[in-house]
Amino acid sequence: MANRPALSNAIRVLSMDAVQQANSGHPGAPMGMAEIALALWGSHLKHNPGNPKWADRDRFVLSNGHGSMLIYSLLHLTGYDLTIADLQQFRQLHSRTPGHPEYGYAPGIETTTGPLGQGITNAVGMAMAEKMLAAQFNQPGHAIVDHHTYVFLGDGCLMEGISHEACSLAGTWGLGKLVAFWDDNGISIDGHVEGWFTDDTPKRFEAYGWHVIADVDGHDVDAVNAAITAAKAETGKPTLICCRTVIGKGSPNKQGTHDVHGAALGQAEIEAARVHMEWPHKPFELPPEIYAGWDAKARGAQQEADWSERFAAYRAAHPALAAEFERRMAGELPANWADFKAAAIAKIDAAAQTVATRKASQIALEAYSPALPEFLAGSADLTGSNLTNWSGSKWIDGSGQGNYISYGVREFGMAAIMNGMSLHGGLRPYGGTFLMFSEYARNALRMAALMKINPIFVFTHDSIGLGEDGPTHQPVEQTATLRYIPNMDVWRPCDTTETAVAWSFAVEQQTRPSSLVLSRQNLPFVSREAEQIAAIAKGGYVLREAEGGAAQLILIGTGSEVELALKAQAQLATEGIRARVVSMPSTNVFDRQDRDYQASVLSKGVPRVAIEAGVSDFWRKYVGLEGAVVGMDTFGESAPAPALFKAFGFTVENVVAVAKSVL
Amino acid sequence: MANRPALSNAIRVLSMDAVQQANSGHPGAPMGMAEIALALWGSHLKHNPGNPKWADRDRFVLSNGHGSMLIYSLLHLTGYDLTIADLQQFRQLHSRTPGHPEYGYAPGIETTTGPLGQGITNAVGMAMAEKMLAAQFNQPGHAIVDHHTYVFLGDGCLMEGISHEACSLAGTWGLGKLVAFWDDNGISIDGHVEGWFTDDTPKRFEAYGWHVIADVDGHDVDAVNAAITAAKAETGKPTLICCRTVIGKGSPNKQGTHDVHGAALGQAEIEAARVHMEWPHKPFELPPEIYAGWDAKARGAQQEADWSERFAAYRAAHPALAAEFERRMAGELPANWADFKAAAIAKIDAAAQTVATRKASQIALEAYSPALPEFLAGSADLTGSNLTNWSGSKWIDGSGQGNYISYGVREFGMAAIMNGMSLHGGLRPYGGTFLMFSEYARNALRMAALMKINPIFVFTHDSIGLGEDGPTHQPVEQTATLRYIPNMDVWRPCDTTETAVAWSFAVEQQTRPSSLVLSRQNLPFVSREAEQIAAIAKGGYVLREAEGGAAQLILIGTGSEVELALKAQAQLATEGIRARVVSMPSTNVFDRQDRDYQASVLSKGVPRVAIEAGVSDFWRKYVGLEGAVVGMDTFGESAPAPALFKAFGFTVENVVAVAKSVL
Repeated sequence: MANRPALSNAIRVLSMDAVQQANSGHPGAPMGMAEIALALWGSHLKHNPGNPKWADRDRFVLSNGHGSMLIYSLLHLTGYDLTIADLQQFRQLHSRTPGHPEYGYAPGIETTTGPLGQGITNAVGMAMAEKMLAAQFNQPGHAIVDHHTYVFLGDGCLMEGISHEACSLAGTWGLGKLVAFWDDNGISIDGHVEGWFTDDTPKRFEAYGWHVIADVDGHDVDAVNAAITAAKAETGKPTLICCRTVIGKGSPNKQGTHDVHGAALGQAEIEAARVHMEWPHKPFELPPEIYAGWDAKARGAQQEADWSERFAAYRAAHPALAAEFERRMAGELPANWADFKAAAIAKIDAAAQTVATRKASQIALEAYSPALPEFLAGSADLTGSNLTNWSGSKWIDGSGQGNYISYGVREFGMAAIMNGMSLHGGLRPYGGTFLMFSEYARNALRMAALMKINPIFVFTHDSIGLGEDGPTHQPVEQTATLRYIPNMDVWRPCDTTETAVAWSFAVEQQTRPSSLVLSRQNLPFVSREAEQIAAIAKGGYVLREAEGGAAQLILIGTGSEVELALKAQAQLATEGIRARVVSMPSTNVFDRQDRDYQASVLSKGVPRVAIEAGVSDFWRKYVGLEGAVVGMDTFGESAPAPALFKAFGFTVENVVAVAKSVL
Repeated sequence: MANRPALSNAIRVLSMDAVQQANSGHPGAPMGMAEIALALWGSHLKHNPGNPKWADRDRFVLSNGHGSMLIYSLLHLTGYDLTIADLQQFRQLHSRTPGHPEYGYAPGIETTTGPLGQGITNAVGMAMAEKMLAAQFNQPGHAIVDHHTYVFLGDGCLMEGISHEACSLAGTWGLGKLVAFWDDNGISIDGHVEGWFTDDTPKRFEAYGWHVIADVDGHDVDAVNAAITAAKAETGKPTLICCRTVIGKGSPNKQGTHDVHGAALGQAEIEAARVHMEWPHKPFELPPEIYAGWDAKARGAQQEADWSERFAAYRAAHPALAAEFERRMAGELPANWADFKAAAIAKIDAAAQTVATRKASQIALEAYSPALPEFLAGSADLTGSNLTNWSGSKWIDGSGQGNYISYGVREFGMAAIMNGMSLHGGLRPYGGTFLMFSEYARNALRMAALMKINPIFVFTHDSIGLGEDGPTHQPVEQTATLRYIPNMDVWRPCDTTETAVAWSFAVEQQTRPSSLVLSRQNLPFVSREAEQIAAIAKGGYVLREAEGGAAQLILIGTGSEVELALKAQAQLATEGIRARVVSMPSTNVFDRQDRDYQASVLSKGVPRVAIEAGVSDFWRKYVGLEGAVVGMDTFGESAPAPALFKAFGFTVENVVAVAKSVL
């Protein structure tokens, strides 16, 4: 069996050699955190390299994701399906070892990290998910959900604002199974951090209610081991283990400087490091005793086997719960979902209510939630405005029981926590804020889309229609810019029925997140034929065909502006102009339809006018240069909504005038 | 003279009555903070209602901007040009009293607040500006820059991540003239905060290195006064005064509950409050003794007169410095700017260097910075990548001397701090990060645009061209979405000369911010005639006209894709196809040109192909439905840049093929 220095140096050489081979990457963090990794992965982490998806594994998150060779080294060494050939392809096209850990590429990667601060926040979400699932599923004598979440983070994560949002909430929740390791190396890219980062970090985390273990020598495996043991013993608070480390340790001439942070060491320094570490092996060649020392396959298989045995006993005692646990961890919808949904939509359509679409959203939640116990609702301190609650909402209590979370005024934190919950599995999070504050959360929305996970974001107060709060709160460009996030579905429904369909469509997505963009103000119900109701799920459809002949003009509306389109259609009809009204609740979904369907809605050669209380340029993709857009390209104003719609040209008269201008 | 309860109740009644009249707004914070406001504005704030732009006034920021009636009441009562009629127009179209304080609407509003956490961050920027300007301009015996920055904030601001970024940096900077008042009322919109906000806030701020005054009774004017005096006495650290308050105090049945946070009290409760406060006056009618008690006009005029006398002495002793101070506070460019700029651009063009545009940006900074001592550079911990420094960069030291700031890994904080500096005046901040992390800062960019201020944001690593860091770092939709922010100029230059023009154009903007989108990788220099160099400032221009006859096709490129357009033009020429190449470094600026100019660049009826390594739909506004876009609508991958450009279709062959398809 290899000794500890050799085991940790194995991480160092793999990391420095892979970065050198790619001539790109970050050797500093992996080399600085090698002993911490050895302590955690060697003696504590509960995982099975043979089954990276084992439900009760510990979760490990590398929040300082630029140090990706650390986790790739660990996955390779402990026995995951990640070969030396994979490591040699580090940062190459279509490899399993991209520059930052990407969820879905290599086995054992629990989340995509890189944008700093989001990894620790994902980890908080995973630990919250564990706590809630344990409360929902564990039974006396049957602790089937019982694992830790470990996270490595650096100074960068601690400087980012989102770390405050997440760690503050983690303290309030008392997440005793969350253990964070701070790589306290005193270096960030601009140099020694004293000029810009002087927090007393232990004190900061104590202020959040964390258990803080300060002053741990991050290169002393026994010390880190002892700290982890102490962290696991504290079950009522999350733990921060503060590890003093030397960045790039093992590089005799560059360690402790920012030169080692984000660039290859260079061939000369790599040779010097090999001498310094007394490492005689060639790049990417490791002796058997190193593999023997790291191998976690047998231990992991045994751990999972033990759990499986316990799960079998649980199934015997609680068969329904066991089946439900398996369904939810698999991310499958209930067997009766399709029928349930159809009945709910039919009922909502029949009720024909004129309400705000935020209220329509609540009505949809009221309908669907009883069938979806995995739903985990919440809001960033705007529950009464977002209407993300329903009659069955029960705020999560100290034990983790419940289904509703007040996230506090933490939009970015909420979104990245929801991502963490989605990645954990077993819960289907949705969360609300004002559409404007999607901007605070924006990169977490993108990360959900990039990772192909399916949280649902509820954004209310979607235009100048919110009125008096004024331009700081009135979205103009937000809906359009959300639509531009690859793999994000944005829905802006116009009434109760479209909202109910949007919700069901979002629920059914397995590999993409959804954003629901909803009005503050009431919107009239629009009656539809069954065929039209079915067409809502195509993202865009003919809501009212022109009467008396082929359409001379197509009016495209979304959300609150569909009403305007319908009224303009009627007015134009009185003047002998035949207009078709297309409702386009989701451009993203419409764009995925086949060309024939698209052409049946937007007939070639027929001039088009788009109407949306948001940036007009977005709509050129549908109306072309010859069509027109009734939109807005300036900031809003503070005033009652009717005054604003009039002032910004969202009137029947204006739509009619614009429509005539394109004929 | 009215007694103190009457003076503070004047705020309460004005606030509750204005909200009631608008039937919209937030009475809770103004009513809860009335005594704090009386202590600060009555006894400490240095300001002159007769001249809201006095350079050395104290700055006051209402970070909990939803409580806007608090500041409107204070401005009215102390003698600013804000009448009762203005207050009666609260939240009405085109009034001076919008729902949130909007910079530029009412005199004395120092910044637009509402999106939580940004006000405190603006205030940190203002206090940093004061410190730096004092270091640059004050001389022995002449302290012409010497004022405080005061900020009110609530639980919401403290929960937001950006408060961590800003307050951490404020501690590192030792901003002794920054004083924040925490309205500790224990209420946020979802209710009592215990379920989601349990920070030990005093301890948190001590961890940042702040001077914390805990446990102040926010309704005891003497106690608040004493705390302010203690805050001013501590000159080496920012101070947080923790004020326990009752939200909505004065409303006998609703105070202390979230019912009073964000809705009108209702007529019955307003009458009960009048009785409770023993307030006999009708709405919007205040007795003379109230005005007499609040009036700050005479004291303010005297304070400014004293300062003007001192400034006269400063001018006598240091005439050049005094003139420079006045120029910079007026936001005027140096008198020789136009000549200086022309020479710099000519020199850069003559050098004809092939470099990355991030390097071209540094070259431009090297050229312009000697003429612009107001330039205040910085980066969110990516100086060596953003190349925001130049040979004259001097990191700010403890005394405030210098011209470069390492903001730490705090993108949102940096941007909102830059906004605060811009609002303060005297400095021209620019700051860098990766384009991807513009998303972290996004709402602060929007706030700059909304406020019509002119910070400059430097965003490097602008596409898949950054290579191996992979999709978490590779912009796809970011450039397009920045262009959609109203009043934001986005520039994506293609070489050194375009970059130099972009920088000069950004510098010359008085009423809008600019975002410079720059490449990591080298881009070839393109030679131009003088007329073309002049046309760069039009945002889009003909870079290479078709040869041998009228253009059959227009290729539009930006940034790194201009090279592709030029090569495709050459290839098409060999096949007898005449293509024009248009370089479009700023679509925003091009859109402001007159139609004739636009038509001279994008000739009507000539098919168009846009080429940009970003979302394609954005370009439909120029190419229409008949044109084509070589863009990308998926996430990137981790690989060397050349492999990526090839994999995503950014090749001459593909551009040529697409161009032929539209003919």
